[in-house]
Amino acid sequence: MASVFSSPQAAGGPRSLAKILDAARAVLSEHGYPALTIEAVAAAAGVGKSTIYRWWPNKEALVADALAEVFRADDIPDLGDTHAELRYAVDMTIDNYANEDIAASLPALAAGLLPHPELMTRFREAFLFRKRENIAVALRRAVGRGDLPDDLDTDLVQDIWAGTILYRRLMTGSSLDADLAEHLVRLVTDTPGRRSGESDRESA
Amino acid sequence: MASVFSSPQAAGGPRSLAKILDAARAVLSEHGYPALTIEAVAAAAGVGKSTIYRWWPNKEALVADALAEVFRADDIPDLGDTHAELRYAVDMTIDNYANEDIAASLPALAAGLLPHPELMTRFREAFLFRKRENIAVALRRAVGRGDLPDDLDTDLVQDIWAGTILYRRLMTGSSLDADLAEHLVRLVTDTPGRRSGESDRESA
Repeated sequence: MASVFSSPQAAGGPRSLAKILDAARAVLSEHGYPALTIEAVAAAAGVGKSTIYRWWPNKEALVADALAEVFRADDIPDLGDTHAELRYAVDMTIDNYANEDIAASLPALAAGLLPHPELMTRFREAFLFRKRENIAVALRRAVGRGDLPDDLDTDLVQDIWAGTILYRRLMTGSSLDADLAEHLVRLVTDTPGRRSGESDRESA
Repeated sequence: MASVFSSPQAAGGPRSLAKILDAARAVLSEHGYPALTIEAVAAAAGVGKSTIYRWWPNKEALVADALAEVFRADDIPDLGDTHAELRYAVDMTIDNYANEDIAASLPALAAGLLPHPELMTRFREAFLFRKRENIAVALRRAVGRGDLPDDLDTDLVQDIWAGTILYRRLMTGSSLDADLAEHLVRLVTDTPGRRSGESDRESA
């Protein structure tokens, strides 16, 4: 596989690349993100540190790639049923943030990347954009069926879904169960779905 | 003020406590969370490191206290207008996460605390519980007026609000403007607000 953090020509050693990414996930699971060092990953992968530094500039970039491989970004199948498709999308998002490696590493990873806008952009590309586009396709399919309003803000829907799930996982510690998934789907299917900026403020 | 991380008897020196918390925020603003050390805060506050360690076990605890002081947890005033009160609550939440010190520190802080359940609990208490209870009071007032359904899940509403705001701030980088605030309010006021678990799945 090609690393999003490596130049195309550097992505030439697929076997050691795969070994390094496996090792990064293994070190992460066993010792956690703060204790993960390039040295530890190199030792676990049986390669030299310089081999890792040839492909990744730092620990953040390596971990973002290692997690991107286990981060689900499925095409949402056309099930002919809007509720089922949106539930598929929400369940996939829950899967991603319930994943121990991802959830345990994401805060420190984001903290390491935020001061570096270029790395942050690559992190978003590795993690988020493919998943978001695939979910947007399903949302637009539902709009096409007339099940959701024409002016649906597909970005906002996804910010609400992923934000609620991530917040529960990291901040409140409350559960990510089927009830939550069902509620997040209905938030979209049961709401008139006006764009923000319209003037109607009546409560339901 | 009494630090949530200190024992009651240790909270005896209010003037140096305040100086240390000011210094922690100053170091945070200037150098960022990763570069913040107890040494740097001690130097900025003009106290010895041992003075800081008398009150706080580590950097995470100190920073959580320093941020808790600037984290808004207002009583939501009774404005006799549900929309206005919910907008107050959402705007307060946006204010908190738009705050540079809070937003820049929160991921690393959460990462530092997550492996330590006891510190994580104190962090939730310092940061979240007061704010959440105050917002829950406003939501229950709206229920009492008949503006929101009796079985409103006030925790879920707050997870959705804070989650969406935090996710935009940290992950997508998109804006936290009045349109977003208005949309988050309407998500609650315009939705039938069923509890998850009911069987009705019809779309609007």
